[in-house]
Amino acid sequence: MAKNKLRVMMLGGLNEIGKNIAVLEYGEDIVVIDCGLAFPDEDMLGIDLVIPDITYLEKNASKIRGIFLTHGHEDHIGALPYVLRSINPPIYGTRLTLGILENKLAEHKLTKKAKLITVEAGSVVNAGVFKCEFIRVNHSIADACAIAVRTPVGVVLHTGDFKLDVSPIDGSMMDVTRLGEYGNEGVLLLMCESTNVERSGYTPSERTVGHSLDHIFLSNSDKRIIIATFSSNVHRVQQIINTSVKFGRKVAVTGRSMINVVGAAVRLGYMKVPENVLIDLSDINKYPSEMVTVVTTGSQGEPMSALYRMAFSDHSQIELSSKDLVVLSSHAIPGNELLVGRIINELYKRGVNVYHDDPEVHVSGHACQEELKLMHNLARPKFFMPIHGEYRHLMQHKELAEFMGMDPKNIFVTATGDVLELDKNSCKRAGTVPSGRVLIDGYGVGDVGNIVLRDRRHLAQDGLIVVVATVDVEEKTLASGPDIVSRGFVYVREAEELMEEVRRIATKVLTDALDSGVTEWTQMKNSVKESLTKYLFSKTKRKPMILPVIMNV
Amino acid sequence: MAKNKLRVMMLGGLNEIGKNIAVLEYGEDIVVIDCGLAFPDEDMLGIDLVIPDITYLEKNASKIRGIFLTHGHEDHIGALPYVLRSINPPIYGTRLTLGILENKLAEHKLTKKAKLITVEAGSVVNAGVFKCEFIRVNHSIADACAIAVRTPVGVVLHTGDFKLDVSPIDGSMMDVTRLGEYGNEGVLLLMCESTNVERSGYTPSERTVGHSLDHIFLSNSDKRIIIATFSSNVHRVQQIINTSVKFGRKVAVTGRSMINVVGAAVRLGYMKVPENVLIDLSDINKYPSEMVTVVTTGSQGEPMSALYRMAFSDHSQIELSSKDLVVLSSHAIPGNELLVGRIINELYKRGVNVYHDDPEVHVSGHACQEELKLMHNLARPKFFMPIHGEYRHLMQHKELAEFMGMDPKNIFVTATGDVLELDKNSCKRAGTVPSGRVLIDGYGVGDVGNIVLRDRRHLAQDGLIVVVATVDVEEKTLASGPDIVSRGFVYVREAEELMEEVRRIATKVLTDALDSGVTEWTQMKNSVKESLTKYLFSKTKRKPMILPVIMNV
Repeated sequence: MAKNKLRVMMLGGLNEIGKNIAVLEYGEDIVVIDCGLAFPDEDMLGIDLVIPDITYLEKNASKIRGIFLTHGHEDHIGALPYVLRSINPPIYGTRLTLGILENKLAEHKLTKKAKLITVEAGSVVNAGVFKCEFIRVNHSIADACAIAVRTPVGVVLHTGDFKLDVSPIDGSMMDVTRLGEYGNEGVLLLMCESTNVERSGYTPSERTVGHSLDHIFLSNSDKRIIIATFSSNVHRVQQIINTSVKFGRKVAVTGRSMINVVGAAVRLGYMKVPENVLIDLSDINKYPSEMVTVVTTGSQGEPMSALYRMAFSDHSQIELSSKDLVVLSSHAIPGNELLVGRIINELYKRGVNVYHDDPEVHVSGHACQEELKLMHNLARPKFFMPIHGEYRHLMQHKELAEFMGMDPKNIFVTATGDVLELDKNSCKRAGTVPSGRVLIDGYGVGDVGNIVLRDRRHLAQDGLIVVVATVDVEEKTLASGPDIVSRGFVYVREAEELMEEVRRIATKVLTDALDSGVTEWTQMKNSVKESLTKYLFSKTKRKPMILPVIMNV
Repeated sequence: MAKNKLRVMMLGGLNEIGKNIAVLEYGEDIVVIDCGLAFPDEDMLGIDLVIPDITYLEKNASKIRGIFLTHGHEDHIGALPYVLRSINPPIYGTRLTLGILENKLAEHKLTKKAKLITVEAGSVVNAGVFKCEFIRVNHSIADACAIAVRTPVGVVLHTGDFKLDVSPIDGSMMDVTRLGEYGNEGVLLLMCESTNVERSGYTPSERTVGHSLDHIFLSNSDKRIIIATFSSNVHRVQQIINTSVKFGRKVAVTGRSMINVVGAAVRLGYMKVPENVLIDLSDINKYPSEMVTVVTTGSQGEPMSALYRMAFSDHSQIELSSKDLVVLSSHAIPGNELLVGRIINELYKRGVNVYHDDPEVHVSGHACQEELKLMHNLARPKFFMPIHGEYRHLMQHKELAEFMGMDPKNIFVTATGDVLELDKNSCKRAGTVPSGRVLIDGYGVGDVGNIVLRDRRHLAQDGLIVVVATVDVEEKTLASGPDIVSRGFVYVREAEELMEEVRRIATKVLTDALDSGVTEWTQMKNSVKESLTKYLFSKTKRKPMILPVIMNV
């Protein structure tokens, strides 16, 4: 490893959405920025969550001076409960970020173990040779920060996720001044998020949603209003409360994460709720329904979320009817469109009015092209590394930087695990470190890999057939069986003939093998597999998994 | 069944997208309009296609006077190759519609069996008591028609899928005059499609895409241009050819369905291609790459489509590079967003420029709100039945009809299988007929049902564990086993301890059962299932399928 060089790498968040984690290393010191999870791709059957492979951090655990969190979204903090099993450095974050993290850690019984240190925008933390400054940015969660890391070779500016909101709900605009000061001083490397790089213009202010809500409440004054949004969008919830107060409505909250986050936000002072506005969900029937607003989870159509249960009449306290208006204050994340569509249909079936996919009632939390240009203008970095995006986002962000006048050879589109090595005047690629994804399935962390997933996909596609036989190798006879058991292949009662033929073929293959002196289990099993696969494909054009189990008496 | 009444029912296409099929019955006569397929929901694991349950038609096969096709899309004709196995009435459609159908029937070796009768817009077909007139509409496929059915109690107008295109590519605007004449005469029942009812305004003309293509070709004159679109969109392909000709490019076609449809369209005169423009794909390297346009399938990201293979460097004749521009002249159908996104990322990895999700290079084929209002105004029906849509679309179409002045009690939002009974002055609900979905999996038609799907979902989620044992019931002993085989549950080599404990528990449960005199297989198996499920859930929070196979010596 080169001396007096800064090494920068992402262990996640490149060529993917989620599991964002950046690592900066200089000599004997490492700082980590964010440690998020990703949601499984559709072909990762049965998988709950995906976290980054942190082998590199585990091997260098003694060097880690801290994990610095930009904000409290899952894709930035969600891997911590798993990662803390093997490394345990101090964790720095703003109050709301750590408030949300604490809820998570408590669920994993890690509250005592974790070393959480609260900072605020403007705080500077010494971490070995590094000095890390938290800088206010706007985002779809309160208390979000960029992080400027002063290193021995220059400043690295990591934007976290951000947008520019010139009329923010909490009064704190992105600290363009501080970002500009770093730019004036000189930024060695800009690591900038890329989520909305395909969208032109500026992302509208969160405040525009408030105006739309006012209109909706005005024209639905005879209805109970149920609004679904991301629980972490504290400012959105604040605006729902503000509008409700304006129209004299009480507000009830439902959905586990919504209750958790609203609780934390109120407790920590991130949400201002006048007295006697929040009511318990069990009390909503004490008020005329048109005087009630319900804030709920489920805006992504998540099965078993509060909104899902309401839509499918499975919510213990809320029954929806034509007297209700449901507002989806959200936009479906790619892959969730069908789930959201299903809920909307169910709501219509109950006669509920629905506002959905309306740009008036949702704004993004990420910088569009003009805001990205603003960031590049403020930072004016020597080197640039687009982060947080699929490959096409990273490439389009590179194009944007070139449009801003950067030399293409100073822009580094890297992959997870790629190392950049920097000194004051240069930046170059310097190999890779171990990286990848670790799958979480139930309590299992990493015990499901490609082989297991391949089997699940095979089983999902065509089911399986188990062929069980006991053989007497000495006597060269079938002692019992073969018995045929099938699941997920065909409705057996209506395919008796087919299954009988399967049994006949298996019997023949096994007796032939025994007759000709085969004693190798593997060979016998393979013959059964091949013959049955061939037969079944010719009959059904399907390839169920064939599982021969042969026992000796 | 009431005499002198018209019975109208949909056997598909209500509360779902796809498998459109309408049935009109009067006395001893039935006509069917369309007979489409649907694509499987994401939870229908391993299923290829879904077709309507046509039990009702099979039972009344002798009454069917004809199947009338509005246009050649899969969701309107795709079930025919399966349905023709049990019923075989004459099939009426325009030339392109039947041209596309013929390709399909040939694949199923049904060419000889099917009775296809070509009609054109304006044709009137006598079908028992019914007279069916084909009326030109615009849509994203050429030669699309609405169908007006003159019945003994009045006219039923079925719109098929439509839009109004005032500057259509083939010069034929929707025949608003003929539709209006029916309206003036009096329409008893309007059956109108609802796909785009959530969109305000008018759908832009197909011709606008041509202008955009001109601009794209102009500013990419140094690149080979590959354009992906729906193969059935003959007018889109025509415009790609027109623009290519304008810029002196040769055009090659790839993708099985694209080759089929373009072939049929050229043969039948639906596409006009100057000589020496179409070239064989194997000849593209004979021309400078900037003088070549390639038209391809795969605009929905379909795995194994031509575009997919190009993106993943798996296409035998086209290798993509930074000298290529790919245009996705399409919009991702809900559920396909991730597939399309994957292709775009791959294209970027090859340095390819990509135009995608750009409203300039794709227009919808379905009527937006103003066009639906136009249709309602032309038809001015006594009764109205919204069709072709999810529940929310049907309900919003009902609202639109009310906005147009219809009495809500003359609007019938029905479900698949619901029967409406009409005479000259009344329309009322009259029970249901059998209906539903039949799943196609490989060669299997309907042999995969809910039980098989439930098992596939279970297997996909957590895999399975097979427990095999041979017992000697007489001796009350385990003769051999239990052997444990697992697939899709956990990577066994790293979970030896867990699997050993599974074996231990299975052994104990079986020996305990034998000791206490249990001889019932079912009871023994259930004990194994329960004990292992409980143990594994406590250890892994997963519930693999447990499959005990117990044999007697």
